[in-house]
Amino acid sequence: MDCTEEMVKILFQHQHGLIITRIMSTACELGVFDLLLESGGFLSSAEIAERLGTSHMGMEKLLEACVSLKLLRMEKKDNEGFYGNTDLANLCLAKSSPKSQCQYIQFYSEFVYTCSQYLTKAVREGKHQAPLVFGTSEKNMYINISSSEERLEVFQNAMGDAWSLYGQEVISAFDLSSFHVVCDVGGGSDAFAKQYISLYPNSTVTIFDLPEVVERAKKHSVSSEEHRINFQSGDFLNDAIPEADLYILARVLHCLNDETCLALLTKLYNACKPGGGVLLVETVLNEDRSGPLAAHIYSILVMLVLEGKERTLSEYSTLLGAAGFKDVQFKKGRHLDAVYGRKENISF
Amino acid sequence: MDCTEEMVKILFQHQHGLIITRIMSTACELGVFDLLLESGGFLSSAEIAERLGTSHMGMEKLLEACVSLKLLRMEKKDNEGFYGNTDLANLCLAKSSPKSQCQYIQFYSEFVYTCSQYLTKAVREGKHQAPLVFGTSEKNMYINISSSEERLEVFQNAMGDAWSLYGQEVISAFDLSSFHVVCDVGGGSDAFAKQYISLYPNSTVTIFDLPEVVERAKKHSVSSEEHRINFQSGDFLNDAIPEADLYILARVLHCLNDETCLALLTKLYNACKPGGGVLLVETVLNEDRSGPLAAHIYSILVMLVLEGKERTLSEYSTLLGAAGFKDVQFKKGRHLDAVYGRKENISF
Repeated sequence: MDCTEEMVKILFQHQHGLIITRIMSTACELGVFDLLLESGGFLSSAEIAERLGTSHMGMEKLLEACVSLKLLRMEKKDNEGFYGNTDLANLCLAKSSPKSQCQYIQFYSEFVYTCSQYLTKAVREGKHQAPLVFGTSEKNMYINISSSEERLEVFQNAMGDAWSLYGQEVISAFDLSSFHVVCDVGGGSDAFAKQYISLYPNSTVTIFDLPEVVERAKKHSVSSEEHRINFQSGDFLNDAIPEADLYILARVLHCLNDETCLALLTKLYNACKPGGGVLLVETVLNEDRSGPLAAHIYSILVMLVLEGKERTLSEYSTLLGAAGFKDVQFKKGRHLDAVYGRKENISF
Repeated sequence: MDCTEEMVKILFQHQHGLIITRIMSTACELGVFDLLLESGGFLSSAEIAERLGTSHMGMEKLLEACVSLKLLRMEKKDNEGFYGNTDLANLCLAKSSPKSQCQYIQFYSEFVYTCSQYLTKAVREGKHQAPLVFGTSEKNMYINISSSEERLEVFQNAMGDAWSLYGQEVISAFDLSSFHVVCDVGGGSDAFAKQYISLYPNSTVTIFDLPEVVERAKKHSVSSEEHRINFQSGDFLNDAIPEADLYILARVLHCLNDETCLALLTKLYNACKPGGGVLLVETVLNEDRSGPLAAHIYSILVMLVLEGKERTLSEYSTLLGAAGFKDVQFKKGRHLDAVYGRKENISF
C-alpha cells in the first residue's frame, strides 16, 4: 500500500505546522498586513521590503509563503509580483483592525512555543509543567503570569483578541437583556465586558480577578463607557464573589479540575440572585469526543500548564446541575460555544 | 464584515500549527503508532498508557488529539474509547514501517524548532542564521551538521525517511534503465541509492559526499546489495567528480545559490559521459510562483540556514541549459518532482 495524495497532504501539513505558525507570526511582527491595509491595494515585494526596512530577498520569500497560506493575494504585472491582503488579513492580521488577532499570535509564538517542548513529559507524568515553563516553583499558572508585568500584558492582550473576534457571537447566543448586574468571573481584561455592554446597553459588568490582574486591566481600560464597567479584586476560589444577576465564566472552567469547577459553580449559585444565571463560554467537545479539533488542541495546551480539561455538554451540564443550576441550554458557535444555566426564581 | 467559517478555520490551523506538529511528534516519540500497528487492532487508552509507561490522563488527551488530526481512529464500545491506527499512521508513523517518517518528524521537532525562532531576523537581514542556529562561527550548514555525530545521524535519517516515501516515484519518473554508472552527488546516506538499484537492477550507484558524511553512511549501510552501492569522499564544489552516465542531485540545488548551482552543473556536464544525463529532484515552484505550499515552506526553511532557494521549472531549465544539458523534461510528483536533462552523444 502506498500513500494517497490526501495522506501526503495531511502528513505535510502536520509536519510543517511549526514553521507555518512562525511564518504567520513573522509577517505580523514585521507589519506586512498593516502596511498592505494602509496602502489599500497591491505593492511590489521591493516596496514592501523597503518600507518595512527588511531585505528584499527575505521579504519576497515571506510574502510568497503567505500567499500559499491564503494570508495574502498576488497579482502579476509585467512579470513582477504585487501583493495585497486577503479579507482574512485585513480583518484579523492587521494590528489596526478591531478584530486583530496579532497579539494572540504573538502569545502563541512565544508562550506556546516554550510550553510545547514539555508535551512528552506532561503526557508521561500526567501533570502540568508550569514550574518548568515559567522557571519557578510556583505551580499556579495565573500567579506565574501575573508576577511578570510583560507576561501579563501579552496574555491579557491575547485573550482580548479572542473576544474581539468571538465575543459578540457567544454573548448573543441567548437573550440576556433581562440581566442588569453582570459579573465576569476571572475575566482578566475588560475586553469581554466591552463586548457585553455594547450588546446589552442596560447592563453593568464587574470584572472579578486577581489583584495584579485587576490593577493592570484598570490601567489599560480605555472604554468611554467606563462607568458601566467596574473592577473588583479577589481570588474567585477563596474570596467572596460579588452578587449578580448573571455570572460569566469565559474560558475559566477548562482551566480547572472537576472538583474545583463544582466548588466555584456552587459558590456562584449561592451568590446568584434568584432568577439569575450563569453563562459558560468554552469550545465544547462533541458528545462522542470525536472533535472538534480546536477542543482537543485546547485540551493539550491546558494540560501543559494547568489542571483543567475540555468537556462535553453533558459534562458541563452535570457540573451545572450539581451546583444547583437548571434549564441548561447550549448554542454552538464558529469556534467558541455558549452554555447557559439558570437559578430558579423563589416560588411560594 | 465578519470572519467566515472558512477564515476562522484557516486562522485556527495556522495559529496552532506549532502545537499540531508537537502532538504528532510526541505520539511518535512515545511509540503510540508502533504499539497499535503491532496489536493489529484497537486498544483502550488505559491499556496504551500502561503498555507505554505513561499517565492515563495525558495519554487519553494525546490519543483524542491524534484522532482529530486523522492520525488515529476511535471506536466506542460500552462508552469506552478504543484507538487504532489510520492507514497514514500504519504507513508513515510506525517506526517499523518501511515508509516510516518518524525520524523526519523528530528532525523537525528538534532542528526546525530551533531554527524557526530566527525567521524574523533572517527576513530582516536577508541572510541565513546558521551560526546562531548551531552556536558556532562556521557558516556552512553541512559542515555544522557533519561536525556532530548525533546531528548528522538525525539529519541523514530524516532525509532517508523522505526517500523511503518519495524515492520510487521520482526515480521512475523517467526511463533511466540505459544508465549503468550512476553518481548520487551530495547523496548523504545510501537511502536514495537503495531505492535506485531496486528499480534499476543493472546499475551501480556511487554516493559522493563530504568525508564525515561518507564515513557515517558507510558505517550504517546495511544493504544486502552493498557491492552495487559505493561511497566516495569529496567536496562536490571543490573536488573532482567521479565519471558517470547519470548524475543525481536530489534536494541539492535548492541548498545553493544560482552561481554555485551553475558551477556544479557545469562540472557535472564536463564529467558526464556523452549520452548521459542529470536527474534533479526538488519540489518545483509553479511558473507563476503561486505554489505549491511545500515549495514556499522549503524556501523559508532553506533561507534559515543556507543560501539556496526553491525554483520554477524555467529556472532549473535555464541553469541546466547554461551548463550544456539539453532536452529538459519534467515530471510532477505528489510532493517531490523530477527534472531530467541530457548530455548529447558525440556526433561526427
